[in-house]
Amino acid sequence: MPRHALKHYLYIIIFGTHTKAGRAFDIALIIAILSSLAVLVLESVPSIAMQWKTELRYLEYAFTALFSIEYLLRLYCSPKPIAYAKSFYGVIDLLAILPTYLAFFFPGASFMGVIRLLRVMRIFRVLKLVRYLQDSNILLRSLLMARRKILIFFSTVGILVTIFGSLIFVIEGPNNGFTSIPKSIYWAIVTITTVGYGDIVPQTHLGKALASLTMLLGYSILAVPTGIITAELNKEMNAHKELVKCPNCNRAGHDSDAMHCKHCGSELADPDKRIVKA
Amino acid sequence: MPRHALKHYLYIIIFGTHTKAGRAFDIALIIAILSSLAVLVLESVPSIAMQWKTELRYLEYAFTALFSIEYLLRLYCSPKPIAYAKSFYGVIDLLAILPTYLAFFFPGASFMGVIRLLRVMRIFRVLKLVRYLQDSNILLRSLLMARRKILIFFSTVGILVTIFGSLIFVIEGPNNGFTSIPKSIYWAIVTITTVGYGDIVPQTHLGKALASLTMLLGYSILAVPTGIITAELNKEMNAHKELVKCPNCNRAGHDSDAMHCKHCGSELADPDKRIVKA
Amino acid sequence: MPRHALKHYLYIIIFGTHTKAGRAFDIALIIAILSSLAVLVLESVPSIAMQWKTELRYLEYAFTALFSIEYLLRLYCSPKPIAYAKSFYGVIDLLAILPTYLAFFFPGASFMGVIRLLRVMRIFRVLKLVRYLQDSNILLRSLLMARRKILIFFSTVGILVTIFGSLIFVIEGPNNGFTSIPKSIYWAIVTITTVGYGDIVPQTHLGKALASLTMLLGYSILAVPTGIITAELNKEMNAHKELVKCPNCNRAGHDSDAMHCKHCGSELADPDKRIVKA
Amino acid sequence: MPRHALKHYLYIIIFGTHTKAGRAFDIALIIAILSSLAVLVLESVPSIAMQWKTELRYLEYAFTALFSIEYLLRLYCSPKPIAYAKSFYGVIDLLAILPTYLAFFFPGASFMGVIRLLRVMRIFRVLKLVRYLQDSNILLRSLLMARRKILIFFSTVGILVTIFGSLIFVIEGPNNGFTSIPKSIYWAIVTITTVGYGDIVPQTHLGKALASLTMLLGYSILAVPTGIITAELNKEMNAHKELVKCPNCNRAGHDSDAMHCKHCGSELADPDKRIVKA
Repeated sequence: MPRHALKHYLYIIIFGTHTKAGRAFDIALIIAILSSLAVLVLESVPSIAMQWKTELRYLEYAFTALFSIEYLLRLYCSPKPIAYAKSFYGVIDLLAILPTYLAFFFPGASFMGVIRLLRVMRIFRVLKLVRYLQDSNILLRSLLMARRKILIFFSTVGILVTIFGSLIFVIEGPNNGFTSIPKSIYWAIVTITTVGYGDIVPQTHLGKALASLTMLLGYSILAVPTGIITAELNKEMNAHKELVKCPNCNRAGHDSDAMHCKHCGSELADPDKRIVKA
Repeated sequence: MPRHALKHYLYIIIFGTHTKAGRAFDIALIIAILSSLAVLVLESVPSIAMQWKTELRYLEYAFTALFSIEYLLRLYCSPKPIAYAKSFYGVIDLLAILPTYLAFFFPGASFMGVIRLLRVMRIFRVLKLVRYLQDSNILLRSLLMARRKILIFFSTVGILVTIFGSLIFVIEGPNNGFTSIPKSIYWAIVTITTVGYGDIVPQTHLGKALASLTMLLGYSILAVPTGIITAELNKEMNAHKELVKCPNCNRAGHDSDAMHCKHCGSELADPDKRIVKA
Repeated sequence: MPRHALKHYLYIIIFGTHTKAGRAFDIALIIAILSSLAVLVLESVPSIAMQWKTELRYLEYAFTALFSIEYLLRLYCSPKPIAYAKSFYGVIDLLAILPTYLAFFFPGASFMGVIRLLRVMRIFRVLKLVRYLQDSNILLRSLLMARRKILIFFSTVGILVTIFGSLIFVIEGPNNGFTSIPKSIYWAIVTITTVGYGDIVPQTHLGKALASLTMLLGYSILAVPTGIITAELNKEMNAHKELVKCPNCNRAGHDSDAMHCKHCGSELADPDKRIVKA
Repeated sequence: MPRHALKHYLYIIIFGTHTKAGRAFDIALIIAILSSLAVLVLESVPSIAMQWKTELRYLEYAFTALFSIEYLLRLYCSPKPIAYAKSFYGVIDLLAILPTYLAFFFPGASFMGVIRLLRVMRIFRVLKLVRYLQDSNILLRSLLMARRKILIFFSTVGILVTIFGSLIFVIEGPNNGFTSIPKSIYWAIVTITTVGYGDIVPQTHLGKALASLTMLLGYSILAVPTGIITAELNKEMNAHKELVKCPNCNRAGHDSDAMHCKHCGSELADPDKRIVKA
């Protein structure tokens, strides 16, 4: 096989998802990612780490080797290797192998903290899975369309927790656990999001009244992002419906997961590959 | 009564819901299921179990006998007994009686754990009630239509809790209760779902900042499944509306709970029995 | 003034809301209800109850006398006194005065529990306020329209918490605080509703995994009632819009809070008094 | 430059947002506000306050001087200084500088409480940021349109927590932490909003049953505000769509964030400045 054909063949297997080999590669990669995450998670459990120390380390080296080969092959067969290396997925693929090499080549950097940090940074391998969530474009587009409203929402929440945090700091004071404004703002976030750990709670009557107000506020403003996302999703789903046209009778209005035209029964474009122009 | 007629008569009572006798049978069965659940629940309360040990055991035998007769009758009168036995409800009906027999026939398996497990497995009798929730098809259809979006949503949540759990594990460390990555992921789930038990909470400033981010994220992505379900339900309810036609004037657009045609007032098909073709 | 005219005059003041005197009566009554609730709440605070014992008791007698006069007047001026006495508001009005009389006339029933219960039952006076929430008919109608779906939703939640509660009872057992199935079901409700008190938490690995599943399930099924209510409210608001017609140009499609016709500017019927036929 | 021209020039920079200088002024002001908030927050952390006492105090004086100059300039260049001083932003701008002056000029008022209160009141400077959230008008309009429904919703929640709080007070009593009705109502709010601190929890069986009911109720009524906001936002977004017209072809129906006409491609009015008439 000439070098050019090999490159293209590899490209179809590694980057493509439409051939049998391409799909098999993807499934193998997902299994490898999940297994390497399992190794990382198991390593963090003291009792398991003690007993299986060597085995886990060798497995880790094996996975790093595997992902390194994958990275080099992607660089090799990509028509634009530099664009790939700079893309979101390229950076993630590099980040997935870097920590192990760093820990291996610089054993002198044996501060426990650095080593542990490098080890855990391997968790970002989980982001390699994002590649397989590309169906998520309707969700993402809804979020993007609503990004200005979401920003305003978070600014409002930010202003509210600053005010409520500071007020509770004055009302309750350091003796009741509210030792500083940052800690009080943390309490306000815990309360307004209805998480409610209970590690810091108001003790005075006035503090409880303020806390009640914060909760009721949080409870009701929770409705705002929901309303935003729902309204955007409704719009998006209708837009999508308008854009899918039957190749046979050219009539629109098909659902986003329709496989056949509802008027004439002709097969529609694969729902996964329909692209909606902005 | 000839054997064939008896079988059909039993079939109408046991499987049907449209005759008076069929409805009476259903109500009696629901009462029996709820009572047998009550026996199971009471048995688990130490003070009650001590005092009423024998009574509860005999009640349990009575219910098992009852459900066994029901199961045999269903097998007997069903036109396709094997299909029934293999169906969801057939398996549930068998599971509802099996544990008591196993505990009865194998008293040698007297490991406390096994017995207790068998006893509690009787809880799956509650699933016999699902048979009576068949009106739930609009809800179920909405969930099914949105299953791809829901899967993407859960994958995203999975990736997020893996990353946040690992980061808090590095930041807080075993000394603050975050003893392993699985436990830290458990904390991330407790936080992102806004449950907030408070059994493990961040102690450091950086940990609290990360926790705040997790909460705000959880608070806002909560909006995504709501938006999905609402958008699907809206679509589903409109679709339903289009499909209900008046038998007299043949005009459509009736609400899913309309009893009479809004144009000519003729009675419509019973809302419970309308079937929407997919 | 003849007796008949007086009765009608009183009826307009006490039951009506359209005259100046009627509105003044309503506002005075709301203030009296809130003040009597304040007395009840203050009485329950030990330090205040000690210091102001006599004053609070006399205030309570005064409010009871006031509400008794109101009740008698309502009975007197109502055209159908028995229908009023049997109605929701008639029963509430009686319940608002009964506890004080019972405690007064039967001091022999001085078991602390009974007295305390009677005292707190006065809290149901708060329900007298419901009379003034009649604008809530859109909300209530949406809830009523969706009552079948809401019932199915609660049955599903009931089945889920029974199963999860029983499973955690087997997994964790009495040593970790899950002493009985009712208590374990309580835990499941605390978890699935994302309340998360933290008074009972899973200790084992398997228990934490099950708890994570419960949380994620609760987090996502929370979307279902929201979707139901939103879809019904959307439908209801559109229906409402269709039914409001301009008295001048007879065109429909006005918003539920529009005061003037959007086509010709004529004044529309008062939004509070528009009645939507079911 | 004549005095009149200077005033107008300053007005465009300080109040306007459309010139380069105006935008630069806004960005500088936002940075100053955030920095002064940072100083306030840092001052509340004991360890930092101890070490950087003098520096933080001088920074505080500098920011107060800056905001004072801003306030005086706004008064000077505003065409209607008294209207400005009485407006929401005028009051906020005054509140942002007042506490420091009060603490400075009345050192005799050295009760710790007063000083601390004055210091923390500077937090209201955060409200100066609201000026820059003016894009929020769709959100605000939706909330305003739904204000009657939201009021009814909060009244309903108020009635519910009063009843549930009083019932749990009778059931659990002071021995289990429910020492008074206000405290019990606080518990009911913590529970119904699904915050669930866990500082007060029911101990008796009946109390736990009531708590379960409260949670399930809170879990489902959470759906009501969401439904209200979503329905209003849907309406609002559609209304907005109708009102944006292309200056070239005069056709409507553009999305609220569209920059160009979807029919002829002409540039539309800046989305930030479109005003929707009520």
